Amino acid sequence: MYDTAIIGTGAAGISAALTLKNLNKTFIWFGSKRLSEKIRKAELIKNYPGLSAVTGEEMANIFCAQIQAESIEITEKTVTGVYALGTHFSVLCDKEAFEAKTVILATGVESVKPIKGELDFLGRGVSYCATCDGFLYRDKTIAVVCTSKEFEHEIEYLAGIAQKVYLAPIYKDVAVQAENIEILKGMPIEVAGGKRVEKLICKDKEIQVDGVFFLKSAIAPSALVPGLETENGQVKTDRKGRTNLKGLFACGDCTGRPYQYVKAAGEGNVCAHAVAEYL
Amino acid sequence: MYDTAIIGTGAAGISAALTLKNLNKTFIWFGSKRLSEKIRKAELIKNYPGLSAVTGEEMANIFCAQIQAESIEITEKTVTGVYALGTHFSVLCDKEAFEAKTVILATGVESVKPIKGELDFLGRGVSYCATCDGFLYRDKTIAVVCTSKEFEHEIEYLAGIAQKVYLAPIYKDVAVQAENIEILKGMPIEVAGGKRVEKLICKDKEIQVDGVFFLKSAIAPSALVPGLETENGQVKTDRKGRTNLKGLFACGDCTGRPYQYVKAAGEGNVCAHAVAEYL
Repeated sequence: MYDTAIIGTGAAGISAALTLKNLNKTFIWFGSKRLSEKIRKAELIKNYPGLSAVTGEEMANIFCAQIQAESIEITEKTVTGVYALGTHFSVLCDKEAFEAKTVILATGVESVKPIKGELDFLGRGVSYCATCDGFLYRDKTIAVVCTSKEFEHEIEYLAGIAQKVYLAPIYKDVAVQAENIEILKGMPIEVAGGKRVEKLICKDKEIQVDGVFFLKSAIAPSALVPGLETENGQVKTDRKGRTNLKGLFACGDCTGRPYQYVKAAGEGNVCAHAVAEYL
Repeated sequence: MYDTAIIGTGAAGISAALTLKNLNKTFIWFGSKRLSEKIRKAELIKNYPGLSAVTGEEMANIFCAQIQAESIEITEKTVTGVYALGTHFSVLCDKEAFEAKTVILATGVESVKPIKGELDFLGRGVSYCATCDGFLYRDKTIAVVCTSKEFEHEIEYLAGIAQKVYLAPIYKDVAVQAENIEILKGMPIEVAGGKRVEKLICKDKEIQVDGVFFLKSAIAPSALVPGLETENGQVKTDRKGRTNLKGLFACGDCTGRPYQYVKAAGEGNVCAHAVAEYL
């Protein structure tokens, strides 16, 4: 069992990982080896102490090199659920479970807000995980709302299972390769249905679907962790990063504004120390 | 009148200054152009995201270069008092007053705790400011407890006024030049007296003195700001860095552990945004 599981490879997760390594704690760190796509997209960062006027791409590369120099590993799996089991936590990635004494949520914030009906139909036709739930839609019709190019392989995976895929891409330079994918324009407005999802309502039309996948960089913390206290979608923490769940800590954008790299990095450091104190 | 006055040139102050500059706010920034002596003394820093395994000296030089690149000025004056005047603040440096709508305290933490009697006799023979109160001790006998080489010019200033100076240096390589200075060994134990200071009690002897100067890198926040709420010597703040005094914010080591550069930098950023929101 790990001392802690860190979820997220933005500035908060990076800072937590560096400090936990320093504190000699064992951890598993979930995210992307490219770190955060959101960091890479930043045009110019002028207020990060220590890095003078860097682009997001430069900053991410500096972070990558630092993590490699410290021999810290990143596990490229998508966390689909975090469950508090009293004495420890179970972190689920699709069907694979990892156990840790504590958890640090550093999942960032999704700039694309949930649409109407999205959260209501979660588990009843709405899914955040292609590889977890894709098999449920063999030969069926689904829609995929996708916020980042990094998930295109998951879209193609779904297209290999479903009969038909309607894709609403909320990013540029779409390059998915599959004959049964039809591109929708703009952000859909609502997921609707009865007991289960029945249709996706768009600006100009309604589409009959059996399910809707939302592939996002950051899942809402409350959807990820049952029982977690949030306020306006932000995780509620104290000054040590402690949440209402004992042993579960949160840092970075998921705890609220300002959405700034150095604020996130500072909170990651605080969480790492709070974890060490808790253990 | 400035939008804000930043007090302290450690990681928290640096971060606040960079972000306030970005936010287009006017500010006066009190501290040292060499930034923080405490940063410079750090042997090796391995957990600051963005700076891989740097010495304190390297980190401070990187920060210096960044501040210069952003054309941010540092005012090398010692703040001796911060007074909340309802609509704004008066920041006193010796006899010079500066006005600001808000104040960001980033004064760090003094590793040398106050000794017995020190705070009790503040203003009654105990002083934190050589140039403010030195003239009171012409031809008298004083003691100076000094925690950093950077204050040696102030010790010499006092030796030019007083008849006799007993110096307790809490640092290495003492190099003060004055015939009337006598060096004491170790940290004094207690300031004692009646209505005013009468003696300084050391391990091996007691010295009759008219006054005691404590020259420290960081004055206790409660001694600096009348009415400021503290707990165990730490400024009490909320998650936005707000203190009990409206318009006065605090960040970095003075708000409590962990005493870490990136935690301080993160809080400096948060304070800068809180100031902008407040204005």
